[in-house]
Order: sequence, then structure tokens, then C-alpha cells
Amino acid sequence: MASKNAVELLIEQLARLPGLGPRSSRRIVLHLVNNRQQHLDPLLAAMAEFQNSVVSCTGCGNVATQRFCDVCTSEDRARGVLCVVESVADLWALERSRMYTGLYHVLGGVLSTTTGVGPDELGIPRLVDRVRALNTTEIILGLGATVEGQATAHYIAEQLRSIEISVTSLGRGIPMGGELDYLDSGTIAAALIGRRELQ
Amino acid sequence: MASKNAVELLIEQLARLPGLGPRSSRRIVLHLVNNRQQHLDPLLAAMAEFQNSVVSCTGCGNVATQRFCDVCTSEDRARGVLCVVESVADLWALERSRMYTGLYHVLGGVLSTTTGVGPDELGIPRLVDRVRALNTTEIILGLGATVEGQATAHYIAEQLRSIEISVTSLGRGIPMGGELDYLDSGTIAAALIGRRELQ
Repeated sequence: MASKNAVELLIEQLARLPGLGPRSSRRIVLHLVNNRQQHLDPLLAAMAEFQNSVVSCTGCGNVATQRFCDVCTSEDRARGVLCVVESVADLWALERSRMYTGLYHVLGGVLSTTTGVGPDELGIPRLVDRVRALNTTEIILGLGATVEGQATAHYIAEQLRSIEISVTSLGRGIPMGGELDYLDSGTIAAALIGRRELQ
Repeated sequence: MASKNAVELLIEQLARLPGLGPRSSRRIVLHLVNNRQQHLDPLLAAMAEFQNSVVSCTGCGNVATQRFCDVCTSEDRARGVLCVVESVADLWALERSRMYTGLYHVLGGVLSTTTGVGPDELGIPRLVDRVRALNTTEIILGLGATVEGQATAHYIAEQLRSIEISVTSLGRGIPMGGELDYLDSGTIAAALIGRRELQ
């Protein structure tokens, strides 16, 4: 490598990002050298602004630039519906579907005996308090179809038993564009159980 | 997307980098949110330092943090040998091989009639001046094995005819680990022409 210090340092830092390695990182650095005004300057400004302003939403745990995130402060969202998700990435995925109009609650993980994550680490008591405070009428357990995701969903449902509330979980079945031949038996079994009458 | 402004802006800027798209960019932003001190802060610092200090080396055109790059200022490099490359990426690739100990000259492109890049745009007169000033004894034309790369190499060789200097180009043949069955005929033909006696 020719110039150490600033150039090498940036390559090193970029290579640590998820999905990037030394090769793609070098490519990005060369691109930034050749596109200082068009790309390096605005990227740096965006990153500095991000560093200054990004916080965790006090309400739901989403990424926010204010105390409460855009979902929590929006007047268009159904405040009686709460969707529990494992991570902000899952929240964003649900937002991209443009189908969900309620509020969220980001757990930041799932219950796990192997890593020692219990109900308190996930703030499940806080979730129960929040459900009470919001007067939630429906809680959607938007957790992954994994053993730990389902154990977490069942634990939460158990904690909410004393509150009058509808507890649902996301539908299971064949994904859009999915071909039966390529799907695992578990998904096909779930699709059979979740079959619906054609309208 | 939940929070617009700073978060969306950074996703947008990252997605414009070579090799990244909206999906990988979102993944990086979430990683940065969760690793502020360990990664966001040092990455931002590295990028700011890079923006402040990176320049083009006055000597060879390499990326540098001073007026002259580490190669040009190094006392361990053979100052009589000059390798002409198309880009800084190519220079870095040669450096990674740890086989080359001379100086470089980055053209910043190759001659091209389609894009209208001529000898003056590539600064070939400046290269000839530099060869004279450095008292170069060997010039290695480290240009790609493409039509335009070779046309550029021949043009440069022509310009250097009046100077007493050894003009070479990189060896052609089977790449390390290459299997004949998978190589194109052009490479095999080049390997036959470039065959050498076993020692």
C-alpha cells in the first residue's frame, strides 16, 4: 500500500463494516478520492449529522433523530395496535411493506438460554407497562419463526394474559413467488395449517 | 422507513458507493447505530482525516497525504525504474505483490478514440519529461492487456524512442492457479509465446 496513515486508516475502518472487506473497501476509497465534491463531502456531512442526531426512540426503540421517532409521533398511525419486533431492521422491513399502520416495540433481541438473555434484559415488564399505558387493543408478535423467536412470543403472550387484549402473530406460509418444490417441509406444513378459503 | 432526515440521508449516501445498494447500506447504518463508540466514531474520524489530508502525489499521481506519496519519498525504492499504470488501483495491486521496488507513474486512463482521450489528456509529454528528469533506465509499461491498454503502451514506447532506456511490459501467460481448460485461447497463445526454459 502506498500512503499509510489517513488512506490506510479509512480502508481499515470501512473494511470492518458488515458486508465489506479489504477489497471493496479499497474500491470505495479510490471512488471517494476521485469524487471528492460529488460524494466524499456529502457522505462525510451525512455521517457527521447522523452521529450528532441519531438516538434510540424513547417510545419504541426505533432509530430516531428526536426523542420520539417518526412512527411514534405520526398522527396517522393506529395507536391501539402494537407490533413487537426483535430489531430495528425488522421494523424497517415491516415499514417497507407499507401494510402496517400501528405502533412498534423493538425488543432488541429474543429470549435465549444459551446467551443468557432473560425477560428483564429484553425489557418485557416495560412492554407490559407500555401496553397498559397505550390502551393497546391488539398486539402483533412480529417475531421470527425460529425456536427462540417463538419462545419469546409465547412468553410475552403469557405476560399479557391478565390484560384484555387481542394477541396475534404474523401469518405463516408460502412466501410470494415461492415454489412448493423449493420450500422446506416446515413452511409447507405451516401453509397447510394456515390455509384460507378462496373468496 | 421510520426516521427520515439524518438516517435516510446516510443510507442514501452509502448506497451510492461502489458495490453497495440500499439493502447493504441499511445494514451498515443499523450496525453503526449499534456500535457508535466502537465503529461510528472512529470511522467518522478516519473519514474526516482522509478528507482533510488526501491529495494526488505531485510526482506519480498516487493517492498521498503529503505533496509526495510514500513511494516517491521512500529511500528504499529503485529510482531508475519507472512503472506506468493506468490507475491508482493498479498501483496498489502492484504494491500488494511486494515484487516491485521502483517508482510509478499513474496515467489516470488509457488512450481512447471513443471517449476522446488523447496523449495530452493523459499527460504523456509530462511522463517523457519525468523520465528524462529522473534519469530512468527502465520503464515498465504496466498497462492492461486490452486493445486500448496496448495502444497506449505502444504510443508511450514510440515517444521514448529518442531516449536511451529499456522499455518493457508485464509478462503474459497463465495466471497462478490457472487451469488450461478454463483459460481463453488468447491467454494460452500468449503463454506459448512467453514460454521459458526450465532451470
